[in-house]
Amino acid sequence: MADRGWPGCAASLKGVILDMCGVLYDSGEGGGVAIPGSIEAVNKLKASDLQLRFCTNETQASREKFVAKLQKLGFDILVSEVFSPAPAAVAVLRERGLRPHLLVYDGLLPEFDSVDKTNPNCVVIGDAAEQFTYQNLNNAFRVLTGLEKPVLFSLGQGKYYKETDGLKLDVGPYMKALEYACDLKAEVVGKPSPTFFQSVLNDMGLQPHEALMIGDDLVNDVGGAQHCGMKGIQVRTGKYRPSDERHSTVTADSTVDNLAQAVDTILNQRL
Amino acid sequence: MADRGWPGCAASLKGVILDMCGVLYDSGEGGGVAIPGSIEAVNKLKASDLQLRFCTNETQASREKFVAKLQKLGFDILVSEVFSPAPAAVAVLRERGLRPHLLVYDGLLPEFDSVDKTNPNCVVIGDAAEQFTYQNLNNAFRVLTGLEKPVLFSLGQGKYYKETDGLKLDVGPYMKALEYACDLKAEVVGKPSPTFFQSVLNDMGLQPHEALMIGDDLVNDVGGAQHCGMKGIQVRTGKYRPSDERHSTVTADSTVDNLAQAVDTILNQRL
Repeated sequence: MADRGWPGCAASLKGVILDMCGVLYDSGEGGGVAIPGSIEAVNKLKASDLQLRFCTNETQASREKFVAKLQKLGFDILVSEVFSPAPAAVAVLRERGLRPHLLVYDGLLPEFDSVDKTNPNCVVIGDAAEQFTYQNLNNAFRVLTGLEKPVLFSLGQGKYYKETDGLKLDVGPYMKALEYACDLKAEVVGKPSPTFFQSVLNDMGLQPHEALMIGDDLVNDVGGAQHCGMKGIQVRTGKYRPSDERHSTVTADSTVDNLAQAVDTILNQRL
Repeated sequence: MADRGWPGCAASLKGVILDMCGVLYDSGEGGGVAIPGSIEAVNKLKASDLQLRFCTNETQASREKFVAKLQKLGFDILVSEVFSPAPAAVAVLRERGLRPHLLVYDGLLPEFDSVDKTNPNCVVIGDAAEQFTYQNLNNAFRVLTGLEKPVLFSLGQGKYYKETDGLKLDVGPYMKALEYACDLKAEVVGKPSPTFFQSVLNDMGLQPHEALMIGDDLVNDVGGAQHCGMKGIQVRTGKYRPSDERHSTVTADSTVDNLAQAVDTILNQRL
């Protein structure tokens, strides 16, 4: 086969996976704002012969509420097209008979309605933002130290994200805090877990080399996808920082200005 | 020389360094409570020919207020005998011309009165406890990401300590959170930093092999002292946990029930 690099690889693609925050929109007060050109880019992908899925580590709201917010911003997105960590975590908890102590944002609680939370034997943390109080983190710590075999699930491991008023700490730093305090290693549910990316590929019925991931997070979006055998493209929006282009361990297959440019380049290869 | 192990080594000792919280007293509401036998043990050491210093990673109050609290509990302790991280940090900031953004407990602020804090070019974190809000941690994160060469000082790296109502997260987990978020390594001021232990030895005019450290924190008290060439004894009070006695990297020279037992054993070797 000839050139499989970017953008040549786009000719043989069968599916595209999009990160959401920082690619489609910037989060912030009042639901955030769409990134210029992204609404149209999603429409173009939907009008093409490519399969399209959305893959987010968003854990501040249930998928229903989250998708409703994106629809309100003008995006043509369905709940069934969106993969997020909370439903994946619920499946793991069920499988292993675990009862979580939850340290998550109030808006995410409905995702765990069906899960037995009495007498917890593990801890699940998500992006709790303002609810990452000292008291709440200490409570999670005490649950873990009280367990003979402490188990910590982290809904993602992002370092920070960008809201309209600046950078905000994500769940990752708090995961590291509990790992250190309790001498354990968290199990990450969500990006960049290979299990999580694989579940999206399974849903599309595609092999990794047939799909491409576009995100603003070099390590979790781009690196995670590449680790699974997909191509990974970084956009210069959202939490992108120029230093990402000289990162020590992850190199994107390409870096593009924004989603609109990525989608136009992909579709041009398929004419 | 014959037996230099415990307790034989006590015969040739010239000085003893005591950790405070978890050795002398358990902290908690209303100033905490003295650990039975510890007040008398301090008196016995003071009546002996051994030099005595106190070495704490306490960063919730100025040394003056902290020592006053211990005196009220019945301990014969002077401010000049106590070594704590904040004054050590102030010295380092001066030396390097750094202006800190402080994320510390309100009670510690007076220690930094003399330090220029305008237009910060580093961050200092201490055990801020309830003041470790999401907002405060995020502010420290934003200062660090805004610096070309981010510098983070952590007043200790303890994982947790014990108060009368249970275990509480110490500064260490929050240090790890910022290290991960900002891709940096903090400079630890306080135990187990060799510089910190050395400053106590210097004050006594002793060589490491002439001094012994007694603490409840296996890694920071015992391991830190051993790393400097001192003997390190762990007490089974404070944050001691049975698993400490089978730790993978640190083995105490001895583990004793409490300070009273340690002091009686030491003084018996010197009759």
